[in-house]
Amino acid sequence: MEVQIAVAKVNKYAISESGDTLEVVERPNGGLSVVLADGQTSGRGAKAVSQLVVRKVIGLLAEGVRDGAAARAASDALYTEKQGKVICTLNIASVDLHSGTIVLARNNPSPMFICRGDQIDRRDEESIALGISRNVRPLITEIPVEPGLMIVIYTDGLTHAGERRGQPMDVEETLRFLMDDHNSSPQALADSLLAHAISLDDNRPADDISVLVLKVTSRMGDNVRRMTVRLPIEGNLRS
Amino acid sequence: MEVQIAVAKVNKYAISESGDTLEVVERPNGGLSVVLADGQTSGRGAKAVSQLVVRKVIGLLAEGVRDGAAARAASDALYTEKQGKVICTLNIASVDLHSGTIVLARNNPSPMFICRGDQIDRRDEESIALGISRNVRPLITEIPVEPGLMIVIYTDGLTHAGERRGQPMDVEETLRFLMDDHNSSPQALADSLLAHAISLDDNRPADDISVLVLKVTSRMGDNVRRMTVRLPIEGNLRS
Repeated sequence: MEVQIAVAKVNKYAISESGDTLEVVERPNGGLSVVLADGQTSGRGAKAVSQLVVRKVIGLLAEGVRDGAAARAASDALYTEKQGKVICTLNIASVDLHSGTIVLARNNPSPMFICRGDQIDRRDEESIALGISRNVRPLITEIPVEPGLMIVIYTDGLTHAGERRGQPMDVEETLRFLMDDHNSSPQALADSLLAHAISLDDNRPADDISVLVLKVTSRMGDNVRRMTVRLPIEGNLRS
Repeated sequence: MEVQIAVAKVNKYAISESGDTLEVVERPNGGLSVVLADGQTSGRGAKAVSQLVVRKVIGLLAEGVRDGAAARAASDALYTEKQGKVICTLNIASVDLHSGTIVLARNNPSPMFICRGDQIDRRDEESIALGISRNVRPLITEIPVEPGLMIVIYTDGLTHAGERRGQPMDVEETLRFLMDDHNSSPQALADSLLAHAISLDDNRPADDISVLVLKVTSRMGDNVRRMTVRLPIEGNLRS
């Protein structure tokens, strides 16, 4: 088997810093975790908040702390630092080779989708962001790693796309349409979801948007781990 | 412009944990850093050492500490923890959007290559690993971000490939051959370098091997950041 994880991420229009932070960390007992946080508002302040949350979570995961405990610790740290005045959403998607499962932790009102074949399971149980109060807990979903499994996670910029002109994005419908092509790679799927959102916002995203797609394939091949990062840079770097 | 970073990474044959650790972190003033460490020996002990070094470096970079200072701090931490008895190589490749440069920090006897067009600049000034003594400093190379620039960094597993059967890999020659195809992506290049090393080791790598390729292209496109991770998993997860 192979787990493929793809991310596509764009800033709010004309804002140089994204309030969304995403990082990947190796798990000390095998596997890896992707951590995605979206800080309240946008720009530098939001970036600082989402970075604080992601750094806290990643530091704990790297020490072997379980995902749920890491999320709760990050919430308490944010609550203490900002006295409950600033909130931040958090999603953790972990490939845990120790338990042979994918562990999904969510502190984010935006739903996520768990797909198998043509089936789309929309997970939208109520979930609150970090930093709102003490005793914030994530929703935890644990699924065996199996070929055909696909998970789609995103920040609320995707849901809000198109609202400015009264055509909000229907993420589930878009996903269903895109999944007709069973062979599309996770990166193609993440790119297409993001591109659709950007087009609904007339190419000027009204918010930071991050899309994460995780797919388990039956691919048998080499034992090589691979990673690609693509970072667009504006023409005049020193402007 | 776009900076593309690709990594291909394999474990020593029959060893479930790689002594190489690689992680990516966003820089607080813009851009990102890739941190690659190779702990002495292989397996679990080496993994713990390279993770210690990478976590230290990443934590400092995330706070805005400069690359050279982060490398020195990691060396001191390792020296203190292991009393000079365990060493670890370190490479940091940073895309610094604040200065508009790529900053390369090296504490690794293995050389690195800086390529432009058909030119290959082999950088093999003497460089010692972290943790050997106090006052270990990295070699720092700073280059403007420019289309056509390509950088190749690797752990010593690549250099040692083929030694077992008396045919050690000539990395520079292999790179020159592969660069004949000017259009190959960084991932294709990293994959090919690694595949050649694995074949020289009769498909049983004698050491952990990690290859990192960074390429600056003139691509003008969307402002979307992208990341793909591919994690192979052995058939029986719970074995």
